[in-house]
Amino acid sequence: MAGNSFGQLFRITTAGESHGPGNVVIIDGVPPGLQLSVDDLIPDLQRRRPGQSKVTTQRQEADEPEILSGVFDGRTTGTSIAVLIRNQDQRSKDYSDIKDKYRPGHADYTFDAKYGFRDYRGGGRSSARETSVRVAAGAVAKKLLTEACGVNIVGYVKQIGELVADVEQPESVTLEQVESNIVRCPDADMATRMIELIEQMRKEEDSIGGVSELVATNVPAGWGEPVFDKLKADLGKAMFSLPAVLGVEYGAGFGVATARGSENNDVFEQGDQSGTIQTQTNRHGGMLGGISSGMPIVMRCAIKPTSSLSREQPTVTRDGEPTTIATKGRHDPCLLPRFVPMGEAMMAIVLADHYLRHRAQNGG
Amino acid sequence: MAGNSFGQLFRITTAGESHGPGNVVIIDGVPPGLQLSVDDLIPDLQRRRPGQSKVTTQRQEADEPEILSGVFDGRTTGTSIAVLIRNQDQRSKDYSDIKDKYRPGHADYTFDAKYGFRDYRGGGRSSARETSVRVAAGAVAKKLLTEACGVNIVGYVKQIGELVADVEQPESVTLEQVESNIVRCPDADMATRMIELIEQMRKEEDSIGGVSELVATNVPAGWGEPVFDKLKADLGKAMFSLPAVLGVEYGAGFGVATARGSENNDVFEQGDQSGTIQTQTNRHGGMLGGISSGMPIVMRCAIKPTSSLSREQPTVTRDGEPTTIATKGRHDPCLLPRFVPMGEAMMAIVLADHYLRHRAQNGG
Amino acid sequence: MAGNSFGQLFRITTAGESHGPGNVVIIDGVPPGLQLSVDDLIPDLQRRRPGQSKVTTQRQEADEPEILSGVFDGRTTGTSIAVLIRNQDQRSKDYSDIKDKYRPGHADYTFDAKYGFRDYRGGGRSSARETSVRVAAGAVAKKLLTEACGVNIVGYVKQIGELVADVEQPESVTLEQVESNIVRCPDADMATRMIELIEQMRKEEDSIGGVSELVATNVPAGWGEPVFDKLKADLGKAMFSLPAVLGVEYGAGFGVATARGSENNDVFEQGDQSGTIQTQTNRHGGMLGGISSGMPIVMRCAIKPTSSLSREQPTVTRDGEPTTIATKGRHDPCLLPRFVPMGEAMMAIVLADHYLRHRAQNGG
Amino acid sequence: MAGNSFGQLFRITTAGESHGPGNVVIIDGVPPGLQLSVDDLIPDLQRRRPGQSKVTTQRQEADEPEILSGVFDGRTTGTSIAVLIRNQDQRSKDYSDIKDKYRPGHADYTFDAKYGFRDYRGGGRSSARETSVRVAAGAVAKKLLTEACGVNIVGYVKQIGELVADVEQPESVTLEQVESNIVRCPDADMATRMIELIEQMRKEEDSIGGVSELVATNVPAGWGEPVFDKLKADLGKAMFSLPAVLGVEYGAGFGVATARGSENNDVFEQGDQSGTIQTQTNRHGGMLGGISSGMPIVMRCAIKPTSSLSREQPTVTRDGEPTTIATKGRHDPCLLPRFVPMGEAMMAIVLADHYLRHRAQNGG
Repeated sequence: MAGNSFGQLFRITTAGESHGPGNVVIIDGVPPGLQLSVDDLIPDLQRRRPGQSKVTTQRQEADEPEILSGVFDGRTTGTSIAVLIRNQDQRSKDYSDIKDKYRPGHADYTFDAKYGFRDYRGGGRSSARETSVRVAAGAVAKKLLTEACGVNIVGYVKQIGELVADVEQPESVTLEQVESNIVRCPDADMATRMIELIEQMRKEEDSIGGVSELVATNVPAGWGEPVFDKLKADLGKAMFSLPAVLGVEYGAGFGVATARGSENNDVFEQGDQSGTIQTQTNRHGGMLGGISSGMPIVMRCAIKPTSSLSREQPTVTRDGEPTTIATKGRHDPCLLPRFVPMGEAMMAIVLADHYLRHRAQNGG
Repeated sequence: MAGNSFGQLFRITTAGESHGPGNVVIIDGVPPGLQLSVDDLIPDLQRRRPGQSKVTTQRQEADEPEILSGVFDGRTTGTSIAVLIRNQDQRSKDYSDIKDKYRPGHADYTFDAKYGFRDYRGGGRSSARETSVRVAAGAVAKKLLTEACGVNIVGYVKQIGELVADVEQPESVTLEQVESNIVRCPDADMATRMIELIEQMRKEEDSIGGVSELVATNVPAGWGEPVFDKLKADLGKAMFSLPAVLGVEYGAGFGVATARGSENNDVFEQGDQSGTIQTQTNRHGGMLGGISSGMPIVMRCAIKPTSSLSREQPTVTRDGEPTTIATKGRHDPCLLPRFVPMGEAMMAIVLADHYLRHRAQNGG
Repeated sequence: MAGNSFGQLFRITTAGESHGPGNVVIIDGVPPGLQLSVDDLIPDLQRRRPGQSKVTTQRQEADEPEILSGVFDGRTTGTSIAVLIRNQDQRSKDYSDIKDKYRPGHADYTFDAKYGFRDYRGGGRSSARETSVRVAAGAVAKKLLTEACGVNIVGYVKQIGELVADVEQPESVTLEQVESNIVRCPDADMATRMIELIEQMRKEEDSIGGVSELVATNVPAGWGEPVFDKLKADLGKAMFSLPAVLGVEYGAGFGVATARGSENNDVFEQGDQSGTIQTQTNRHGGMLGGISSGMPIVMRCAIKPTSSLSREQPTVTRDGEPTTIATKGRHDPCLLPRFVPMGEAMMAIVLADHYLRHRAQNGG
Repeated sequence: MAGNSFGQLFRITTAGESHGPGNVVIIDGVPPGLQLSVDDLIPDLQRRRPGQSKVTTQRQEADEPEILSGVFDGRTTGTSIAVLIRNQDQRSKDYSDIKDKYRPGHADYTFDAKYGFRDYRGGGRSSARETSVRVAAGAVAKKLLTEACGVNIVGYVKQIGELVADVEQPESVTLEQVESNIVRCPDADMATRMIELIEQMRKEEDSIGGVSELVATNVPAGWGEPVFDKLKADLGKAMFSLPAVLGVEYGAGFGVATARGSENNDVFEQGDQSGTIQTQTNRHGGMLGGISSGMPIVMRCAIKPTSSLSREQPTVTRDGEPTTIATKGRHDPCLLPRFVPMGEAMMAIVLADHYLRHRAQNGG
């Protein structure tokens, strides 16, 4: 299937597994003339890579990207851009444990059910290593969006367990605030408590879930399609395509269930700049009828606690025999800190796609 | 753009507006030999149509479908199926109000921002009338899924405002239970209270939001793609593509934010039938790694309160001048009862698509 | 499958059969604000319709289009445009002949092989009636191309049997010249002989093939993609997607087989307008590396003689038993005159698509 | 754009340039469980690679493929397969000549017109090196087709200049016959003369065109879609997507222009095996109504003479100033011998795609 591609005009196609030679992405549709080098890809890859801090997995991967095509004399040529990230820290461990057992919460069983067998080395294609090249592609999308339209995308950790960050204005959070701590929470006090909680989880051989908030500012009004390819629909798919995401909402989100129309509707008003229109509040999360309104786009993703645990968990073998399994060593006790660049990347890829789609039909 | 198509192999393409001649869908990829007639489409269309009960809009539309192609001698031919539903109750009202004013919460402003002008008659392409042909296509998808695989899809109203239905086993809810009351809530007591709440909203010239739950049972393990076209991702997009949906979750959903891995992981066990494997609980909502696990697929959508209100609301004109607007007459005070067949339809279309995709690659 | 859609951004999706209620097309991606009414569709539909002259089939179809959506106040809205053409002259004939026999050269056998059964009424989905809505969509594409870029598309009959028209400058042929005779050949003398040949074929209960030439002028340099979606590749697919086309070539075409590079290469030179570049000759047919060069795009399609013959032809039944078959009455003794608007339509659809694709990536 | 992808279910996406690090292809949709290793890719890559014989370019490229993903324990996993071929013989030559001049017959000018600038090193993305990874993907497609359905694909050189091979039964030509000489012509006597002609061309600093014939046998009846994605249409696009192809035909091809229906129709008859149906002749080239008939699929492509010549050719600079250009050294005096594996690869990719598409809809 074309299940390894995403996007219509800004389109990425990926391949690669956790323990194969590496992961590769082909990025199609990038306009010509964009300044681009590996240096543009490295910062977000560093934010995503394993082994970056004490709250993440200790697998060590440099995640050094190689641009194979599509860039000449420091600029994109308009042809397809391929980026390769080779795997490095593929421990020659004994996989017999997960070869014949189904890890709870993982795709082991469903891959077997689908394909009849699976690459059992560290999750194979279902490993989060696959997201490395999404982040590389997202960095290209971000650069395009920033240079062409001034769009800015920032994600952060909003909640881990019961700890909820105090973020009054999502659209005001800066990358610097987010990167000021290893958990990527702009509320510094709460960040400290979150780090403690994650460390506690590791000690208890357990894991914890959370919520990440993603914000895009300066998106012009008018992006998105009115029916199936609503901007919220493509963003929703993008987020659900990331591992461990069990819920996605934007604007008032699930809060609308108990809201009345009279209180939920955002009131239109003249904008600060002459001739512009904005809303007084942003419960609509920057999208109306699936099309951007010019207000900040604000989404939240619910991330489940890591399924891999160091402690013993009951499960079955391929034959259905009861057994137990424990994942020794290298996994994240909480997925949230490393999710942030992944969520940003997917948001950027969707927005870049709709930027080009809007330009195709509406000419600018 | 191809923004009016949805799906890869079971693919629908739609056209139509609220106050034009009608809406049409072309359904591509339906296997040949499926028994099909308009009688298969009518029940779900009746569940979606306006004017069906006192808790819905009073616009009267018979929503009678005409099959234009793809069916011969009572069976699908394998070629594209077109279904046309003509509009009928298009009141020759004066649209000057919404022509030059932006209705809060609607797509009026964003359409103008995107296209430069808009069909202002009743929302045009952004009207929920567009979903009529989705429901027709969904009926075809349901029939295919049922006959080919025994898949069953049931949706219902889980929550309206603060009123939450007591549904212990989502997979046990039947269509009969859902259709036993006009609000489509399988908890009969709560249904009565929900109806009262909706009537109160109408009296108060207000509206109220809610949550719909959608369940697919008997989905075989193995459907869905491992990366971008995860089953959860395509279902997520499908739901977000429906009007008024601000949040989507499956399984434990946003509840995972406060969960620990040790309590969130579902434990695998031998199934009731020899050689099968299942989980003891279903916090994973029937999908692991984006692929169906064989357990019931359970999703929830948060629906905002209707933006149209009979009461006066502040807004601006196209020129940004402050004004007020009121929607007299025909709108739903709560979108939930009519959302149920729409959500079911989109779920069916996604599952039918992945049924065919799985068969293409894995041969059955 | 999505086998009933064509194009990426200017995208058409069709449905309909020869003897069902009608044929419908949904046109996706048309920019907003284009003046459009049914009057824009009728001229080309008249050129394609059966019963238009003595050299075509005598089936009578008015082919009156109804625009179902996407146009408001005389302008396209940017949302999907649906056009419906109902069938009228569906003679209540006895189809038992073709129901159980395979017409030579038709898709009867291959449809049965593919789908297990078929709509045997007049060819069903494989009937050339399906092209009526392509021509309607092509009229929209032509209007877009003309208004946005001044592109002009003209097709004509170049050859019927051994009769080859003398056309020195394909890019100079006008629609008026083409429409000055019923066979659509700009060489008036040869047109007369072609008409005689077709009438002779009808008398002899036989049919005859030919070649149609299609020319697009004023296509800007730069349209088309460098690899798979070369402009020549998408045009080639478009032409081969039409019934009865067994060969497609552009520029020097099959003549290159015997050419040397030194004589085949077109020499670049400064254009008439300052700053432009053109070639002295046009053996490259307006496309280099799959991208338009600014020179006229010139293609030719080889059309087979109509497979339906009034005379008896040997064939087999569904069970493989030898039998004979004759098609009494209504078929074209030569497909060429009615092919011209079909070929133009497909050429226009491809060019409109690449116009939008070029604008998406390159901004104008 | 998605212009770097081809196919719907068996889908390839490519990236890479002539003088960058290398070329890569991602192959999506390969069924799981197919035995596959680099050894399966090498034979066809050897047939395509430059420097293979005295009648091809002398650029030396080993074209050694590396499989980056999608294969585990010697079998395809069902996830995307990436193949990387690094460039080696990238001479550090002075490109100033082609940097500022437009080579006749090449894409230099059209790339500049499209993108504003270009990677001028050896043609960049428009180089035939891009076809190396198509051939690798084609080898995967061939293996799938052979193992799943017994389909066999053989291409050969039919004509070079005025020299036309005598091939009575295209479906009987074997790979061994084709590979028995360096020009890949199964008519041994003509092959000798073709080689002489090519050598003469090199001496004369000229080049020569030709025709390649491609044959697929054992394709079951029923593959292909009835409207836009006719098998002939997708095959046609595939062939036109290859460099230097100016004409494509199948079956009787352009010969139908002068044919009568009574002589062109192939007569159906009972097949050799009970219950099968075949045609006595194969002027329809194995496809009727765009769907395979079970008869051999026979196509021909017209290939232009190489545009690069060692001799001086007149042209212009980027500024339109008259100048001359000569390509010293490494180019093919005739493209035909190396075209054969490219054509076979594209034919295989299309057939593999339609095999999966047919199975998706029709279940087998």
